[in-house]
Amino acid sequence: MALTMQGPIGVFDSGIGGLTVVREIFNQLPNETVTFFGDTARLPYGPKSSETVIQFSRQNAQLLLSRGVRSIVVACNTASAVALPTLERECPVPVVGVIVPGAEAALRETRTGRIGVVGTRGTIASRAYDNYLAAQRADIFVRGVPCPLLVPLAEEGWTDHPVTERVVGEYIAPLLAEKIDTLILGCTHYPVLKKTIQKVVGPDVVLIDNAVETAALLCENLAPADPTETAGPIHRFMVSDVPHRFQEEAELFLGRPIGSIEQITLEELEAILGGP
Amino acid sequence: MALTMQGPIGVFDSGIGGLTVVREIFNQLPNETVTFFGDTARLPYGPKSSETVIQFSRQNAQLLLSRGVRSIVVACNTASAVALPTLERECPVPVVGVIVPGAEAALRETRTGRIGVVGTRGTIASRAYDNYLAAQRADIFVRGVPCPLLVPLAEEGWTDHPVTERVVGEYIAPLLAEKIDTLILGCTHYPVLKKTIQKVVGPDVVLIDNAVETAALLCENLAPADPTETAGPIHRFMVSDVPHRFQEEAELFLGRPIGSIEQITLEELEAILGGP
Repeated sequence: MALTMQGPIGVFDSGIGGLTVVREIFNQLPNETVTFFGDTARLPYGPKSSETVIQFSRQNAQLLLSRGVRSIVVACNTASAVALPTLERECPVPVVGVIVPGAEAALRETRTGRIGVVGTRGTIASRAYDNYLAAQRADIFVRGVPCPLLVPLAEEGWTDHPVTERVVGEYIAPLLAEKIDTLILGCTHYPVLKKTIQKVVGPDVVLIDNAVETAALLCENLAPADPTETAGPIHRFMVSDVPHRFQEEAELFLGRPIGSIEQITLEELEAILGGP
Repeated sequence: MALTMQGPIGVFDSGIGGLTVVREIFNQLPNETVTFFGDTARLPYGPKSSETVIQFSRQNAQLLLSRGVRSIVVACNTASAVALPTLERECPVPVVGVIVPGAEAALRETRTGRIGVVGTRGTIASRAYDNYLAAQRADIFVRGVPCPLLVPLAEEGWTDHPVTERVVGEYIAPLLAEKIDTLILGCTHYPVLKKTIQKVVGPDVVLIDNAVETAALLCENLAPADPTETAGPIHRFMVSDVPHRFQEEAELFLGRPIGSIEQITLEELEAILGGP
């Protein structure tokens, strides 16, 4: 990976769940500057066709490149599952998804080789984790379960709520019956539910938080920021729509107030790749 | 309202919740043919700006007109709240939304003049019900509560689930504290949760189902279908994306199998109004 040393780390997501990855970048790389784009006008990506998700992802990556980023983090499981090869081919900077870091961490952690994955319907149907894990180790057992209610519960802020515990219990029961010892949180919204999920699965199941793993991989691979350019990082947050309760939700996922945001119109996004 | 007698009833929604309205049209107007369009590629409309929702609604209406409909039902609370005047002005056929039928039914049913509204964040923030009700009767008390978890719970098929009962209870508590006697279900997804909602509010609160009221209004106002053209209605279902589990969810809202569906591309939709 040829790395230039100047410019912020670019991060995009279909919405604002990807701010959990930004939060971990802040934790692990406190001297780095982040430029984030959340495609809130076109979310969710999960149910959309691969062609559409690839096209949106290309536009999002180009938007970040036009803002001078020196690396791109695809903080969205669906986009990571379908668009990563295209982005790696097209982008002149390193591109990191969330699936490989999470899957690699699960391979490191599992003792019994029995791994569970929770995610949106789109992520689970893509079998991205299953395929990656099977390609690394033929003896691995993987079972994925779609958990469509967890994103709305996280967005509602019911992170510690008895309803969430009950819902998690219902979704995860078949995984516990399969005696998994490692559970990949395959959705960028889920880290805010980690405490509740851990309570349900018990202390013997290791949770893999892709946000933490992705930031760790960046940490290992990224040349440090040019020291002459950091007079303290000034982060930049862009979205394609400012939904109701945006500030509250963003703060929940980011773990701190988000400050000012910039809106990018759909027209600007769609024009970004030029002609067809 | 000048009504032509030929052609199906057109119905559109941002997704497939609007099939609850189609179901009621089937119940109340069994000899009519329905042409439905669900904009599943661009849902949800709730968080989007009014300009965007108006533009999408215009495209959806033109798509239905190009299929020869003789009336258009806007089976989406958000689109009804913001796009109805534009559609009424532009469309050469009668246009019916879901808000006025629901609000009128609430005015007929309430004894104490204390009305509650449940809906998505977008619908509640639009104050469409509050404004309409206040304009009809100055002495009416209206309180709206956003219930963002109810759409995902309905889509997950947890219509009768203890979790849903608990969530409804939490959302509706402030309305019960206000001693409402009538509750408008201000979202086309909610009719499938009616039994659970009634259980929570108790027998003394009247639930207003906009799907039933909208179909009833159509029933009153629509000239009957041309008897020469009905050799048994052949309904037509179009969507802009076929999401995961589409058939199951569609059947839940429609109350019967949906049969074959036709996919309309976003390119076709965006081209439908011609130049800017």
